[in-house]
Amino acid sequence: LKAVLLIIGDEVLNGNTLDTNSNFAAGLFRENGIHLSNIITVGDSRQEIIDGLEYAFSRGSLVISTGGLGPTKDDITKATVAEYFNTTLTLSNEVLETIRDRYEKRGIPMTKLNENQALVPVDGKYYINPVGSAPIFRLKKEDKTYFALPGVPREMQYLLEHIVLPELKNEFMKEIILQENIMTIGIAESVLASQLYSIEELIEEANTLDHYFKLAYLPQLMKVKLQLTARGKDEAYLTEKITEFKNLILPIAGEFVYAKENITIEEAIGNLLKERNATISCVESCTGGYISHLLTKVPGSSSYYHGSLISYDNRLKTGKLKINTNVIETKGAVSKECCFDMTSGGLEFLETTYILATTGIAGPTGGSDEKPVGTVWIGVGNKDRIETRRFLFSRSREENIHIFAITALDQLRRFILGLPLRGEEA
Amino acid sequence: LKAVLLIIGDEVLNGNTLDTNSNFAAGLFRENGIHLSNIITVGDSRQEIIDGLEYAFSRGSLVISTGGLGPTKDDITKATVAEYFNTTLTLSNEVLETIRDRYEKRGIPMTKLNENQALVPVDGKYYINPVGSAPIFRLKKEDKTYFALPGVPREMQYLLEHIVLPELKNEFMKEIILQENIMTIGIAESVLASQLYSIEELIEEANTLDHYFKLAYLPQLMKVKLQLTARGKDEAYLTEKITEFKNLILPIAGEFVYAKENITIEEAIGNLLKERNATISCVESCTGGYISHLLTKVPGSSSYYHGSLISYDNRLKTGKLKINTNVIETKGAVSKECCFDMTSGGLEFLETTYILATTGIAGPTGGSDEKPVGTVWIGVGNKDRIETRRFLFSRSREENIHIFAITALDQLRRFILGLPLRGEEA
Repeated sequence: LKAVLLIIGDEVLNGNTLDTNSNFAAGLFRENGIHLSNIITVGDSRQEIIDGLEYAFSRGSLVISTGGLGPTKDDITKATVAEYFNTTLTLSNEVLETIRDRYEKRGIPMTKLNENQALVPVDGKYYINPVGSAPIFRLKKEDKTYFALPGVPREMQYLLEHIVLPELKNEFMKEIILQENIMTIGIAESVLASQLYSIEELIEEANTLDHYFKLAYLPQLMKVKLQLTARGKDEAYLTEKITEFKNLILPIAGEFVYAKENITIEEAIGNLLKERNATISCVESCTGGYISHLLTKVPGSSSYYHGSLISYDNRLKTGKLKINTNVIETKGAVSKECCFDMTSGGLEFLETTYILATTGIAGPTGGSDEKPVGTVWIGVGNKDRIETRRFLFSRSREENIHIFAITALDQLRRFILGLPLRGEEA
Repeated sequence: LKAVLLIIGDEVLNGNTLDTNSNFAAGLFRENGIHLSNIITVGDSRQEIIDGLEYAFSRGSLVISTGGLGPTKDDITKATVAEYFNTTLTLSNEVLETIRDRYEKRGIPMTKLNENQALVPVDGKYYINPVGSAPIFRLKKEDKTYFALPGVPREMQYLLEHIVLPELKNEFMKEIILQENIMTIGIAESVLASQLYSIEELIEEANTLDHYFKLAYLPQLMKVKLQLTARGKDEAYLTEKITEFKNLILPIAGEFVYAKENITIEEAIGNLLKERNATISCVESCTGGYISHLLTKVPGSSSYYHGSLISYDNRLKTGKLKINTNVIETKGAVSKECCFDMTSGGLEFLETTYILATTGIAGPTGGSDEKPVGTVWIGVGNKDRIETRRFLFSRSREENIHIFAITALDQLRRFILGLPLRGEEA
């Protein structure tokens, strides 16, 4: 099944909207064994949409469009697609009722324009939209299958996953697809690949006409997701093999594995803390609240995240954390000594199980030969032990802040699990 | 000049990489009067690239591709494009030397594979890449113009802005383009549009064959950028008219204008504080460090951002900010009283000019009928005055955190400038 995404929207072509729907769809398709062959973005005009559909169907038999299903006169996807498929639009009373209900519940008066959203193609199939007012619909012509989705990311992504995907699975995909993820941090993709070379060969040898296995490396900043996919008919066999491969990879990726399922490092930290009934606090300088933000954007984080002091100004370091002014004057705020004192001072000041401290130079200015931009000291500790390590990254300010934070979370993971810490001791 | 972007990369089609280059290019094109007609994403295969080029040139006379210029065998853009343009590749000693220099400076040994990056098309024009090792190049055929850029966002975006755009301006764009931005926050696009209706008419009436003026509404979460564009030959006239329009819009958008140039609200806050030699600190609860992160990601923020307390756990509210346990027990942590005490406690505890405090329920759980998910109290104060206001938003946890933070920054702006605050007093 070859799929093509047709993104309809002037707002994407004029740069006002970053298209995140394509990336969501691409990931969902990969996980479900659907081959996405192209993404085509066109403007909100009849001719653009018609040409786009023409080209899209020349590349794949499944076309999914996003956008242009709203109530205003710019939203011409429905009429144009009906024209392309030689059909007309008709008012669906069922859809009209659900839209009216939706407006009533929100206490907003429904306008004549909204009624247009209840129009559906005569020859197609439509589906009520449980998360918005535009119904989605589907059309067929010979071997061509088409779905129209709204462009609002929250709606599009929900509908693709919960309505379109089940339909596609039901109709086109008779195979079972299993997936296992191994999440690593702090090891380069190329290093992992060379260590897993023989296992990749094993995986390749396991491929038969009926059963297909694959290991993919999905790198992100500081992290690599190892994704095992198994596809075929015999679920028991697929499960057995994918588990076997996973168990071969885990000891090799070893201490770099932060989770055996698809979660973020901050979620993994949350799980470690919950298991131990422990809490975390931070003393952030150069990361300026970003570690705290990562930790607290996880739902339920209030059960283990205690709070933080962002000691940006040195007066907060000396005033609240009781760091000796002499340390800052002689060694500087970006120093092993200051980092140690921030960690120990934070333990006392914030009264939690674990503490994470950062002091560094995010840039773009403020560096020196001795302490270049990108230098960071990361401290981690509990009541028994405090460790500090130095790292050097050289990116833009925002990327440095991001990498400092991710690295700090990895140090905390290693500290909690008793694994060797990374970075330089001096 | 009609442009088409050709995004080459399996990593985009399998969902591993979110394509941000297109959005960057689209914005840059809009600002410079280049019409982006389509974006086409294809995989790293010879046939896909050839078909993509074919289609792209059927849509516009300028095609810019990204990706596939690296040193590995997956990187086939250069050879394929040469084939499409009926030319061959040749080794450029100039490029080879710059690549060798680059590697030497970084102390990395150069491999045979990297030498491939010094190949350039015989019939084209190439440009040394100052931010990476792949040179960019340009080819022409009849009225078709083509540029190849690497896919790494940092490189692609630099090269597009600093090499490709000046070339295009030089060759194709004989007109002068002026732009003025008015940044608003807290007012809906539709409200702004109705208030600016008569000015839009004025702008339209000013259009002649030689001079073109436009007002665009570019909405983002809580914000709308008003962008005035003037295009034509007579710079003095364009400047006079665009200034006239801007001066008509400013008093109407009034207190919702946070900047008269293209900057973020956190940058605008930074400017206000620098002008006043003032500092800001935060007491963050539900925003969990995100306000501090927004403030500190601005370069130079250490001159006005003092530091923050993230008082997630109520023990930090009572312990550090001296909030009466009774207040939290009877009114709750998400209450006007607690917010007031966080603001006044923070002023004392953090010793800065201005303080910003947040306490609310980001969700997805923790809400009640009386205090639903999305409720937030925002406090703002200085030594003379403390104000607290309540807001209700209903989004996902991450979006709520984002909106809470942006709204808090806008309250601070209003507080500093003596403008009426937004939100409910009780």
